Amino acid sequence: MQNSHFSSMEKINFRTKVLSRHLNQENPTPNSIIQSFPCLSYTPPELSEQSSIFDIKEMRKLMDGHNLVDRDWLFGLMLQSNLFNPIKRGGKVFVQPDYNHSKEQQREITMRRIWYLLEHGVFEKWLTGKGHEDELRKLALLDVVGIFDHSLAIKIGVHFFLWGGAIQFFGTKRHHDKWLKDTENYVVKGCFSMTELGHGSNVRGIETVTTYDSSTGEFVINTPCESAQKYWIGGAANHATHTIVFSQLIIDGKNQGVHAFIAQIRDENGNICPNVRIADCGHKIGLNGVDNGRIWFDNVRVPRENLLNSVADVSPDGKYLTAIKDPDQRFAAFLAPLTSGRVTIAASATYSAKIGLATAIRYSLTRRAFSATPNGPEVLILDYPSHQRRLLPLLAKTYAMSFASNYLKMIYVKRTPAMNKTIHVVSSAFKATTSWHNMRTLQECREACGGQGLKTENRVGQLKGEYDVQSTFEGDNNVLMQQVSKALFGEYVSAKRSKKPFKELGLEHMNNSRPVIPSQLTSSTMRQAQFQNDIFCLRERDLLERFAAEVSLCQSQGKSKEYAFTLNYQLAEDLGRAFSDRAVLHTFLEAEASVTSGSLKNILGLVRSMYALVTLEEDAAFLRYGYLSTDNASMVRKEVANLCSELRPHALSLVSSFGLPDAFLGPIAFNWVEANAWSSEQN
Amino acid sequence: MQNSHFSSMEKINFRTKVLSRHLNQENPTPNSIIQSFPCLSYTPPELSEQSSIFDIKEMRKLMDGHNLVDRDWLFGLMLQSNLFNPIKRGGKVFVQPDYNHSKEQQREITMRRIWYLLEHGVFEKWLTGKGHEDELRKLALLDVVGIFDHSLAIKIGVHFFLWGGAIQFFGTKRHHDKWLKDTENYVVKGCFSMTELGHGSNVRGIETVTTYDSSTGEFVINTPCESAQKYWIGGAANHATHTIVFSQLIIDGKNQGVHAFIAQIRDENGNICPNVRIADCGHKIGLNGVDNGRIWFDNVRVPRENLLNSVADVSPDGKYLTAIKDPDQRFAAFLAPLTSGRVTIAASATYSAKIGLATAIRYSLTRRAFSATPNGPEVLILDYPSHQRRLLPLLAKTYAMSFASNYLKMIYVKRTPAMNKTIHVVSSAFKATTSWHNMRTLQECREACGGQGLKTENRVGQLKGEYDVQSTFEGDNNVLMQQVSKALFGEYVSAKRSKKPFKELGLEHMNNSRPVIPSQLTSSTMRQAQFQNDIFCLRERDLLERFAAEVSLCQSQGKSKEYAFTLNYQLAEDLGRAFSDRAVLHTFLEAEASVTSGSLKNILGLVRSMYALVTLEEDAAFLRYGYLSTDNASMVRKEVANLCSELRPHALSLVSSFGLPDAFLGPIAFNWVEANAWSSEQN
Repeated sequence: MQNSHFSSMEKINFRTKVLSRHLNQENPTPNSIIQSFPCLSYTPPELSEQSSIFDIKEMRKLMDGHNLVDRDWLFGLMLQSNLFNPIKRGGKVFVQPDYNHSKEQQREITMRRIWYLLEHGVFEKWLTGKGHEDELRKLALLDVVGIFDHSLAIKIGVHFFLWGGAIQFFGTKRHHDKWLKDTENYVVKGCFSMTELGHGSNVRGIETVTTYDSSTGEFVINTPCESAQKYWIGGAANHATHTIVFSQLIIDGKNQGVHAFIAQIRDENGNICPNVRIADCGHKIGLNGVDNGRIWFDNVRVPRENLLNSVADVSPDGKYLTAIKDPDQRFAAFLAPLTSGRVTIAASATYSAKIGLATAIRYSLTRRAFSATPNGPEVLILDYPSHQRRLLPLLAKTYAMSFASNYLKMIYVKRTPAMNKTIHVVSSAFKATTSWHNMRTLQECREACGGQGLKTENRVGQLKGEYDVQSTFEGDNNVLMQQVSKALFGEYVSAKRSKKPFKELGLEHMNNSRPVIPSQLTSSTMRQAQFQNDIFCLRERDLLERFAAEVSLCQSQGKSKEYAFTLNYQLAEDLGRAFSDRAVLHTFLEAEASVTSGSLKNILGLVRSMYALVTLEEDAAFLRYGYLSTDNASMVRKEVANLCSELRPHALSLVSSFGLPDAFLGPIAFNWVEANAWSSEQN
Repeated sequence: MQNSHFSSMEKINFRTKVLSRHLNQENPTPNSIIQSFPCLSYTPPELSEQSSIFDIKEMRKLMDGHNLVDRDWLFGLMLQSNLFNPIKRGGKVFVQPDYNHSKEQQREITMRRIWYLLEHGVFEKWLTGKGHEDELRKLALLDVVGIFDHSLAIKIGVHFFLWGGAIQFFGTKRHHDKWLKDTENYVVKGCFSMTELGHGSNVRGIETVTTYDSSTGEFVINTPCESAQKYWIGGAANHATHTIVFSQLIIDGKNQGVHAFIAQIRDENGNICPNVRIADCGHKIGLNGVDNGRIWFDNVRVPRENLLNSVADVSPDGKYLTAIKDPDQRFAAFLAPLTSGRVTIAASATYSAKIGLATAIRYSLTRRAFSATPNGPEVLILDYPSHQRRLLPLLAKTYAMSFASNYLKMIYVKRTPAMNKTIHVVSSAFKATTSWHNMRTLQECREACGGQGLKTENRVGQLKGEYDVQSTFEGDNNVLMQQVSKALFGEYVSAKRSKKPFKELGLEHMNNSRPVIPSQLTSSTMRQAQFQNDIFCLRERDLLERFAAEVSLCQSQGKSKEYAFTLNYQLAEDLGRAFSDRAVLHTFLEAEASVTSGSLKNILGLVRSMYALVTLEEDAAFLRYGYLSTDNASMVRKEVANLCSELRPHALSLVSSFGLPDAFLGPIAFNWVEANAWSSEQN
């Protein structure tokens, strides 16, 4: 125990002394004439901060989780080409996506970057690979692409994960043989036409209609009305040659529900095919490197073989054939590729938050503001407890989100049909949680950088516009979180009915007795994983019981289950968060357990305590439902402030462990005095 | 009392029935084959919603507060010119600032819009006018300009409020005579060089140095090092001819602190003056219509008369003369024009939130998603209680912010020296509160619009980038809120020391006995202004007492007051919010009191209760410090949900009362099916 804070108290004392020296300077002369200050100079935080007490490379391994060599190779590849807009600031080179350019220019450069990556073998085995290793390499490289530019990652993601993924998941051998290799080589450029003007999250309600013409052996795809136009289709406006079309399938006048078809929309010269109309979605607040478009189909005919027939097929003479009788299950099968989308969103949201934090924290270690005494030196902004409170809890949460998104990747890569429910629920929860966390982190980081956060080249502010889309695409976050609560409700009801123990979704803790929270929390209790786990589990368990009771009450009053869910949205939201936070904590504890004792494990313990305690502080549910007494809540709040001081000396090492090359951060993270010097302007 | 909810219960019952009919459709067939839906069509909410039960024009008067005719005139003026980019969508015309253009193009069109407004007399008497009426007209017209485009408002604001305001406030007759008329006519174009690369919020630390040369009767302005370059100077990069320069003034080797000087930076042909260097601040995440620049002064000489000498002067032979001996007070006098900035920020943040809400709420009254039964119709998204909870509390808060910003305008316009402290504290609190509220509202509205919120032409998402700057310029919001708490602390200490009653900053309630909150809240209690006021006052009072006690405790332990403030930042933040919320509530009650009884007053009561109760629900301080028991907090939460249902039928009327012409909202607020029709694309 003595070692567990690795003499962090000493460093805190040191910090406190530095700060109080600033603030309590001897013989202050409050009304004395202000003296001129010596000019500011920039000191790299590497020189001014203490050296790391843990192994940054080891921490980076844990953070990135897999394929570090591949990641570094791709970072290097991007740094070697002028296509990635290298700019020089303060003696360093930074790469940056485009801005101050029209959407047309941004789209073209994004496509050229894809050709460059293709030529250099980045996409090898992305669709033709087999096994976990190929899949993990793909996910790692997509992470890296996204660190450079979200538009580039999305443009690639649509082609490989949505178009390619649909062919893999919904198609059968004939589709795999015909399309996967050509997709991997960009001989065809694919897009994914699911969303329509009138229907987004509610895919089941789409209005595109497909019928079968047995006389020619063709499907006939039609956009029957304006609200059925395909909308937000990434790649459609300029580049895609082919698309997956989601459509109601009508056979013999009967609607068999949503199915997926392959249709060509452009020829090899980029001309739009007959009976297809395409329009632009226009300028967006971010992601302008992606050419989102709208598509209308006017009785477009495609061969019968273009139905992606893993779930259902139509025979040449027009019989509807399926092994899955239940249309709900059939429909669910068609949403599977969206899961891969949620997996990649969780990872990319986390990396985006890392860029914001690495930039804002490095800046806060070099920027001073206000002196506490008339002639005293100005204080480093990260030495203000309030600034620590703004950034360090988000840093701890970002560590937690890293472990969560790595876990999600792993269960996704190693998926079996038995894990479908878990993957659906966890990916929904983590997609929503990480994307909300990212937006919040970027906003705080942008404000923490002051005006510099608004300067596009400093990245932090720019990322807000680029990543905003994540909270609503691949499933609106609120809708996803409702699905989480509904799934938990389902587990609860089925466990109670069958009188069998809980055994999925991490709910096994509900089989134990209800955790008891000490009436008087102490610092050492609060930092124990046991306490943290107990109170997170207590919250989830209690909210699930309350939610189930309220829904059952409504049902007993004759209301439908859906209506009961709708009415109890407040509890549902609290419960969704409780599930997600508890699941995230478990991934953190798992990561911690993988490390042998020592400084790395110790710092992880501190970071995890910050994650857990700041969650207790911020979610009013702990007070509202009485999991924390007001006395205990006040202890938690004090402890968060203590943890801020304890993490402060490690802030630089903790962001260095993100493994982001300097060139991918905003220039404000480095020598911003030199970067802004007149002489730099003249180069 | 019977009338007070104007039979709102009937409407709630109606809504509830509609919703439950959707959700509980007779004989649902859960696993039946999905039928194709009829195509979607758009119904204007004016047709589908009940007509307003209150007078929308009267409500708009209350919202805008002043100069309605002038406002409508300027809206019309903008609609008459192609300079404001009229676009046609769904049979309606919308005006829009530029996007998908380079910053250079955006800056030029912004300047051309200014010429147009100038020619049409918009700026008449903005600087040469006298009295409240001219000042209120100016503020109203600036509101309207900002509703079109924040860049245009800021570009105008810098010229009139910062450059012009500095001459008015710091200058004397010779400056007024020489510059005000020419400024009003744009014969000169002014900017305001306060911020430097190294110093933003901490103006006192700026490094620009000015000396006096008595041999020529000139001041010599110098940028001694790179961190002293002027930074973020709106207008400097391209258009400004003159600037106010803030600089340390050194007389006989002694630093007299920050003073303001007039310097020319460009000649009438736009050529940069000798000894001045100017560079661009580059692309920003918003406000690219404003040409922010950086300025270096290389021993720039300006006549002695160019010192703005209302506070201090230098005699021809180089003697420093001032009536204000205390350099702190002298410094404070120089920050006065920033107050006008905070007044206009509060107003424009509120109007921005109105644009977001009017757009998102109108869309939510025409967009449907998910049917609760397999073949049932889809539900209007504002009929989901969860969607109501997302938007309607923000709507109520926006009403509150309107009253607050109108109040702030009024005390600013009618200011007397005795009101300086109040204006400083209230403008700091309201600037921070409204700008945070705006960003939060825009984010929620953008998500509530789904993907459409990301489409730049729909405005909601675009406004986020444009208004983000407000939380850090004219004083970082966190720093401003700290100042509020410090001012409250000062009042507290002085009242206790002098044993005199509180009589400023709205703290008079502290002279009364401590309010008592009923142990069992009921719906009717919670809706009483008395209760709402009591609990807001209780929170402010208790937090001020706690804060004062903690700071005193630190002081008794030998810590400086500043250090004590720094350590107690959590309480300081809670207290700042408590002050601001209570002050906002008071402005709401004042506005309500100005209305005679009837439907308008009734609806205002509902909106105010929503504002008060959602504040109780969202700020965990009420639970943390025990102002609300967990039982009472749970009652409050239920009541917020009830208020959502009760406000739902009035949502359309409440946003219509904002008085924003259709053309200034996003097209998604109107016929979005037709706006996206292929035929529209071909026009």
